[in-house]
Amino acid sequence: MVGDGVGAFIGDVHRKAVLTDGFSVFTAGCFSRDYSNNLETGKKLGISEDRLYKNYFEMAEKEGKREDKIDYVIIVTPNSNHYSIARIFLENGIHVACDKPVTITSDESKELKNIVLEKNLLFLVTYSNIGYPMIKQARKMVLNGEIGEIRMVMAEYAQGWIPPKIESANGQKKIWRFDPKTQGKAGVIGDIGCHIENLVSYVTGLSILSICAKLDVFGRGFELDNNASIMVKYENGASGVYWCSQIALGSKNALRLRIFGEKGSIEWEQENPEMLKIAMRGKPLSILFKGDDKTDVISRLPGGHPEGTYEAFANIYRDFGKALMCKKELRNQKKIYSDFPSIDEGIQGVRFIEKCVESQNLGSKWIEI
Amino acid sequence: MVGDGVGAFIGDVHRKAVLTDGFSVFTAGCFSRDYSNNLETGKKLGISEDRLYKNYFEMAEKEGKREDKIDYVIIVTPNSNHYSIARIFLENGIHVACDKPVTITSDESKELKNIVLEKNLLFLVTYSNIGYPMIKQARKMVLNGEIGEIRMVMAEYAQGWIPPKIESANGQKKIWRFDPKTQGKAGVIGDIGCHIENLVSYVTGLSILSICAKLDVFGRGFELDNNASIMVKYENGASGVYWCSQIALGSKNALRLRIFGEKGSIEWEQENPEMLKIAMRGKPLSILFKGDDKTDVISRLPGGHPEGTYEAFANIYRDFGKALMCKKELRNQKKIYSDFPSIDEGIQGVRFIEKCVESQNLGSKWIEI
Amino acid sequence: MVGDGVGAFIGDVHRKAVLTDGFSVFTAGCFSRDYSNNLETGKKLGISEDRLYKNYFEMAEKEGKREDKIDYVIIVTPNSNHYSIARIFLENGIHVACDKPVTITSDESKELKNIVLEKNLLFLVTYSNIGYPMIKQARKMVLNGEIGEIRMVMAEYAQGWIPPKIESANGQKKIWRFDPKTQGKAGVIGDIGCHIENLVSYVTGLSILSICAKLDVFGRGFELDNNASIMVKYENGASGVYWCSQIALGSKNALRLRIFGEKGSIEWEQENPEMLKIAMRGKPLSILFKGDDKTDVISRLPGGHPEGTYEAFANIYRDFGKALMCKKELRNQKKIYSDFPSIDEGIQGVRFIEKCVESQNLGSKWIEI
Amino acid sequence: MVGDGVGAFIGDVHRKAVLTDGFSVFTAGCFSRDYSNNLETGKKLGISEDRLYKNYFEMAEKEGKREDKIDYVIIVTPNSNHYSIARIFLENGIHVACDKPVTITSDESKELKNIVLEKNLLFLVTYSNIGYPMIKQARKMVLNGEIGEIRMVMAEYAQGWIPPKIESANGQKKIWRFDPKTQGKAGVIGDIGCHIENLVSYVTGLSILSICAKLDVFGRGFELDNNASIMVKYENGASGVYWCSQIALGSKNALRLRIFGEKGSIEWEQENPEMLKIAMRGKPLSILFKGDDKTDVISRLPGGHPEGTYEAFANIYRDFGKALMCKKELRNQKKIYSDFPSIDEGIQGVRFIEKCVESQNLGSKWIEI
Repeated sequence: MVGDGVGAFIGDVHRKAVLTDGFSVFTAGCFSRDYSNNLETGKKLGISEDRLYKNYFEMAEKEGKREDKIDYVIIVTPNSNHYSIARIFLENGIHVACDKPVTITSDESKELKNIVLEKNLLFLVTYSNIGYPMIKQARKMVLNGEIGEIRMVMAEYAQGWIPPKIESANGQKKIWRFDPKTQGKAGVIGDIGCHIENLVSYVTGLSILSICAKLDVFGRGFELDNNASIMVKYENGASGVYWCSQIALGSKNALRLRIFGEKGSIEWEQENPEMLKIAMRGKPLSILFKGDDKTDVISRLPGGHPEGTYEAFANIYRDFGKALMCKKELRNQKKIYSDFPSIDEGIQGVRFIEKCVESQNLGSKWIEI
Repeated sequence: MVGDGVGAFIGDVHRKAVLTDGFSVFTAGCFSRDYSNNLETGKKLGISEDRLYKNYFEMAEKEGKREDKIDYVIIVTPNSNHYSIARIFLENGIHVACDKPVTITSDESKELKNIVLEKNLLFLVTYSNIGYPMIKQARKMVLNGEIGEIRMVMAEYAQGWIPPKIESANGQKKIWRFDPKTQGKAGVIGDIGCHIENLVSYVTGLSILSICAKLDVFGRGFELDNNASIMVKYENGASGVYWCSQIALGSKNALRLRIFGEKGSIEWEQENPEMLKIAMRGKPLSILFKGDDKTDVISRLPGGHPEGTYEAFANIYRDFGKALMCKKELRNQKKIYSDFPSIDEGIQGVRFIEKCVESQNLGSKWIEI
Repeated sequence: MVGDGVGAFIGDVHRKAVLTDGFSVFTAGCFSRDYSNNLETGKKLGISEDRLYKNYFEMAEKEGKREDKIDYVIIVTPNSNHYSIARIFLENGIHVACDKPVTITSDESKELKNIVLEKNLLFLVTYSNIGYPMIKQARKMVLNGEIGEIRMVMAEYAQGWIPPKIESANGQKKIWRFDPKTQGKAGVIGDIGCHIENLVSYVTGLSILSICAKLDVFGRGFELDNNASIMVKYENGASGVYWCSQIALGSKNALRLRIFGEKGSIEWEQENPEMLKIAMRGKPLSILFKGDDKTDVISRLPGGHPEGTYEAFANIYRDFGKALMCKKELRNQKKIYSDFPSIDEGIQGVRFIEKCVESQNLGSKWIEI
Repeated sequence: MVGDGVGAFIGDVHRKAVLTDGFSVFTAGCFSRDYSNNLETGKKLGISEDRLYKNYFEMAEKEGKREDKIDYVIIVTPNSNHYSIARIFLENGIHVACDKPVTITSDESKELKNIVLEKNLLFLVTYSNIGYPMIKQARKMVLNGEIGEIRMVMAEYAQGWIPPKIESANGQKKIWRFDPKTQGKAGVIGDIGCHIENLVSYVTGLSILSICAKLDVFGRGFELDNNASIMVKYENGASGVYWCSQIALGSKNALRLRIFGEKGSIEWEQENPEMLKIAMRGKPLSILFKGDDKTDVISRLPGGHPEGTYEAFANIYRDFGKALMCKKELRNQKKIYSDFPSIDEGIQGVRFIEKCVESQNLGSKWIEI
């Protein structure tokens, strides 16, 4: 993995995601220009120090020559570096997984494609939204013609996290998302607008004929667009409206897709990703949940268990893990970290169950606990 | 880990959860009475074969004697085995993490507690719901007195997955949740009712004074309760109603908690776990999302990114992983598994961004793509 | 109409409701013990003064003897007066519409029934919730067996308006809902609990076999229950839980009904009364809106027009009416009340439409307005 | 009133709305070109036959000369007639209330304005949405600067009722909304797009600088636009996107307004009109309901009583009214229309209350009913 050492956000998501199904392990990395951060991150992931590289050139070249070289590299650096990093790894015969947008200019991305073809390599762009089970379900239904010929697409991705102004040059540099040097010419449209484009394309299969875009820059000190409205004409005659924003206060990560066809419509929201609203002409609104019999899409958990279920479990195991570590250090001392359900809570639960059965057996009478 | 080999549901959740934060690795196991399943599961987790045991007695004893013994064992077998498995591991000096309910009778759980105290060991009962960040937030607010003295608790856990009838003895045996031999005397009340009890206790700190329970057995062939209503009196004078059900058609995993105090109320739903509804007397309803500034609770992702975000990322990495494996086997053949965003989607996205900027620069004119 | 002069809440609802379909007009009344309020209310309703009576005895007797006597009387007084007022009107041969609960004791209500039968009169108890179109739809579906034999009923009516304490005897007298003298022995259970009982009975047709009730009195100075939990056994073997409360802070008028049968379930909420959630075993959740083709229930407006549509229209007509009245008084003065859309807004709208068409005709170009 | 006799939809809404507050009564009308429909409608409204006119010219002239002439006329005819009808009434000195859009061309509406000024008359355009209490609340907050300078407006009005195609000329004529002769050059943009324009203008006070509109005509046989996307630039530098549609299957009457300012945002939906979502930078989402203490806007009912409450009451009074009419005709026959809660339901309710109190007094024991 190149980029996003300890303390960065999206790299951690990538790392946890990669580990989830046990397909991959981390064996090499160049996580940060700050070598100590690099070492720290690598150590946490169990990577041997000789495969923690000082820069990506070194990593690409050295890994490219190893017998047991890495299968693929994950690139999660600021956008402006994607091209040169991806290029050097591809040239050294290593498959690439790269954050979106893949490059700053489309010429760069076409060049990458040429190397991919020439070297016969795989290239993943991590447009993560198409990974949601219900998006795969939506795509299947739309491509099967269930909602008929598409007429109108409404897609929006609203965030509201941007600060009211950028105080100083320093402030701006810290936030590379606002800096044309690392981000390219596009602000919100490059950061999340491309998610809309990819998601609509994936679910509908429609090709865009032409667009009319209005990009706005709000707030003192900002150089890049942080609010964008785009009208779209598709080749099949359908219309679309895309809206993405970082200044939509009150919105968190509100990616929402609505597709209206001749026979029905489909609606999906990323903040509630396990359901799909389906309205067929002349029928009541139908809400399909992940896990409903009709859905044969990939899913790790039964219906009603939001994916956050893993998180909740992980949290109690984390707290238990902390207690174990305290315990090892503290030996026989009594006070240990204890925000997890222990045998006391276990006893309490069993007694509650017993008493419920007892109350029932007495004719549903009141009994003390 | 003892129990839940390949093909079982909750064991996989436990395993993924344990791995999430990298606190633990699996080094030994006894996943199934079926030794080949045991081997398969262990192999997937990278456990060496000499530490994959044929039964839990062997595992507890042999591990107990090793220098590099396991830190703790995770027990995810049917309820009736919890007691004897937990006991043998505790006796061999190994910490225990055990699925709920911890035992069949409260006497058994008290015995376990005695060993825990005697041996000075840790014991985790995996009541996972208290792992949700917003539950920790709710507990903090309630214990701080923000909603005042509690007056009324409404808690429900509704599922609707139970089949209309059990056709035959065979059918019943397969589903150990319905079998008094493995499940004990309690059905739904033991399976999910104890989650309600634990959650209310954790968030409110209230002690139950007495209860009045009505347990129902619906459907032909069922022996254990699958619908339960319980009225509760708490020591502070508050009242409660608990309802849990496996026959509530249309419900998936609908755990919902509402707490009404003298000054305000709090509401949380497990199917939408990242928000908390807070109503203070005389103020508008307030909805607190995970990630809002006010919440200082644990959370791995910023607001608006449901925890399923990991899943979506994991899904595209999984599909990419599959493609890589295809590739290795197929060598230079052209057709490979390809349901992941590739360089083509990357190019398309960058071009979209470029064209948006171009349209804007032309005065928001229509341009072809 | 007897009771609820100007300034009272529910009487006004009754009056507007009665007038809605033009079936009835008000021709006589005894709206308040305060005769001037009585006169004022009567005048507003266009009732001639000789039919505005000082008390209900006088009204019942005098109206009973008229050729053109009233068809029926509407009783909206505090509960404790219902019996004697209803009785005197029935005895004078006048049909009765009476607010719920019909009397304080069931013996009283049985006596009224005897007179009803003897005199062959009609008697309406204004349990208004069964007037909702989607409740009639739910009843039809349940009685048709669409969700199968009923197993579980969850019904709740949560309000949170009650003040934290009653300061003084004076304070209490003003609020007759809290006074055992006017309200009888039952507080919330009499005020809104009976709505639950009626609604469940209407929709399901189930008969109650036995109940177990826990009534709570919260807050300093209160004498009557303001929170009640009731477990219910029905004759068909189903179970029920009813909860009603006036201390559920954050709740406004949250009447909610969930019925779980062998084949499916139905859910309805009074605060969102135009939809019905229907979950049939093995099918996606279906949401039926008022106006969907499948519903053949009574309804005055097409789908998506909440009944509040009348209100919104009424509000602009009211503001226009005020302006007209200003105008008449002010003659040629220029400043008049003007919070309604006038010809200026009309022009603006037409120009907007014209410009939209013009932009389209120019190839969807930007044009100034 | 001119237009919309018995059987038409919007006229009935206007009529009920006008009557709601008792400001107006109907004293004259010309409801239909079909004189018998006209007579029938007039009779229902209690209008004397000599004031039911054959055409609007006659009505305007005759009413204009009466001492007791009508205060104002309500025009609810197809759009193309608005101008000439409004004109003749204004010229005869009668105030006008006219459905939207006020005329087909903006020149026509300007002419009406000239007469209004000259004759010193009032003119109401029934943009009903600004009558919602929470819209008045939103306007107040926006104009007070609570959300700061506006940056982005998202407004949409989605309907999905349009049929897939128009079969024949006959089919089309029946639906005047689709006919350029009655509707003018604009389809959905004239029918509901103007509601968006008016609502945004009312709530924000923003002036539109320029627009870019894309109007679509979907479905075989349609001549007028039934889907429209419009990008908007406001004078203060804010951007807007308006979308209105009649082909958005699954939508009923989904008017939705979102306004994003520098300090916060406001959201309102017509299908859930009694709440306002308010998100201030750095604070949790706040949901303001009609009736919350903070709102001092007009409202006829307390919070939690959707305006449909009148409807539900009206429905039971209607059914009681029908029973009364049956009764009068049928004399002593037993079978009468009876879908209303009668004395039996009254008794049942009182008994339920009594039994609840009794159960409580016995220590919350089970008792039979």
